[in-house]
Amino acid sequence: MQRCLVNGQVQGDISCSDRGLLYGDGLFETMAVVNGKLPLWAWHHDRFTRSCARLKLSCPPRAVLEAEIAQLASDVDRAVIKLMLTRGVGGRGYATQADAIPTRILQRHAWPALPDSFWQTGIKAIFCEQRLARQPALAGIKHLNRLEQVLARAEWDDPAIQEGVMTDTDGHIIEAVSHNIFIVAGGTVITPDLQFSGVAGVMRQYILSYLEESGQTVKVTALRKQDLITADGVFVCNSLHGIWPVCELDGKHYPLNGLICELRDHIAHILPYP
Amino acid sequence: MQRCLVNGQVQGDISCSDRGLLYGDGLFETMAVVNGKLPLWAWHHDRFTRSCARLKLSCPPRAVLEAEIAQLASDVDRAVIKLMLTRGVGGRGYATQADAIPTRILQRHAWPALPDSFWQTGIKAIFCEQRLARQPALAGIKHLNRLEQVLARAEWDDPAIQEGVMTDTDGHIIEAVSHNIFIVAGGTVITPDLQFSGVAGVMRQYILSYLEESGQTVKVTALRKQDLITADGVFVCNSLHGIWPVCELDGKHYPLNGLICELRDHIAHILPYP
Repeated sequence: MQRCLVNGQVQGDISCSDRGLLYGDGLFETMAVVNGKLPLWAWHHDRFTRSCARLKLSCPPRAVLEAEIAQLASDVDRAVIKLMLTRGVGGRGYATQADAIPTRILQRHAWPALPDSFWQTGIKAIFCEQRLARQPALAGIKHLNRLEQVLARAEWDDPAIQEGVMTDTDGHIIEAVSHNIFIVAGGTVITPDLQFSGVAGVMRQYILSYLEESGQTVKVTALRKQDLITADGVFVCNSLHGIWPVCELDGKHYPLNGLICELRDHIAHILPYP
Repeated sequence: MQRCLVNGQVQGDISCSDRGLLYGDGLFETMAVVNGKLPLWAWHHDRFTRSCARLKLSCPPRAVLEAEIAQLASDVDRAVIKLMLTRGVGGRGYATQADAIPTRILQRHAWPALPDSFWQTGIKAIFCEQRLARQPALAGIKHLNRLEQVLARAEWDDPAIQEGVMTDTDGHIIEAVSHNIFIVAGGTVITPDLQFSGVAGVMRQYILSYLEESGQTVKVTALRKQDLITADGVFVCNSLHGIWPVCELDGKHYPLNGLICELRDHIAHILPYP
């Protein structure tokens, strides 16, 4: 099922001197394919170009990306497309070379088969011990330095647990390992501020925009564990799954929340599940 | 000049699904070759095995590493050997697979030609704007998540500047971009504590052990910019260059310090320069 293009060539390997490997010097996007198309492509492309600017990476022309994505996606119903961009092959040492040619990698992966219940009744989550460092220079972007997530995800192997909620080194709630997180409290939807840590996910951005446009109260602010424990509802989201309600977090149970179900059903028009 | 072995095979590429690329999920060592041998191999191997344990990576047998290093190093006078170990090829997602086979990469690079003056009269350094995040889970080890160093190194392109000194997000001096840092103050040698950030370099460890064994006063503690500014001398070190005195830091000039020159000359017996 997997197919891979490297700088437009059908190829499954990259150089051992690619800075993506040497230093994690690059970015990625993970995107859902629905009926051969990427319903959130405009949002992914927007974040991707902004992230390239943050890392001073030269962004490939949009038309090139779109042609290569079509090559991988147009003949499949559901799939996952992963886009990576690295600063390319470089010599030893951290200094970047002005003439380096970025490496653009596009991979198609099978659509993951997941039970209906993750959307319908919700998922079980825990709090992770592993904290996220506070690094404003890298906060928000989906770069290739992801050891914190690797260490956090290794904290559980119980298949009944779908996610781990992460705090930063100051104890603020930031995100889940592979999803952003929101709470509903007194009719207000709230999600953590990501100025210092975390990935500003495309689905998080979509949800924030949708709530603002539809006149609903939404807040981006600092959250602590206590806010999750006292919330009316908690949900996680990403650009593959849309919205999963959280039905249990570290032993605390949440009833299904009407506002979360409405949001989930709205997103399901764009990303049908499962 | 460059040669590369991947899991023992002469090969210059790795899979685009290698977790070293996907997440920077791995480690590296950069080692000097002198007359076909690695004079600091025991120190590198010690840090490497401890770092593998920190990341729960399965460390290749020492004999395998030594045989492969000999294959690359034995016929050269001076060179650089880079060892990387990743968690191997994995599926999409942060979860590690128990049966994953780590990818072991050994590369030989040409010995960098550098002027005598870096050792004799010292180097010019600046303070970097880019801060290091505080992350105790990753502090000390030489992992593949190195975007902070990439961003810091991109702050200057003046070839007269050899290094940038980095502070953490709380303002503590931690290291230089590619070297550890020491100061000499009132006859005492001091280097920053690396519990929260930074790479605990092999040469730093060697110097600390040497000073302790020879009965000299040495301290590992928190340092701030002011400590560097008021120091009698400053030097940087790594496992390729040994010791470089700093003769200028952000406009402040340091006279050559006797203790630093003695240390430098001692190290030069192991790593002759240039």
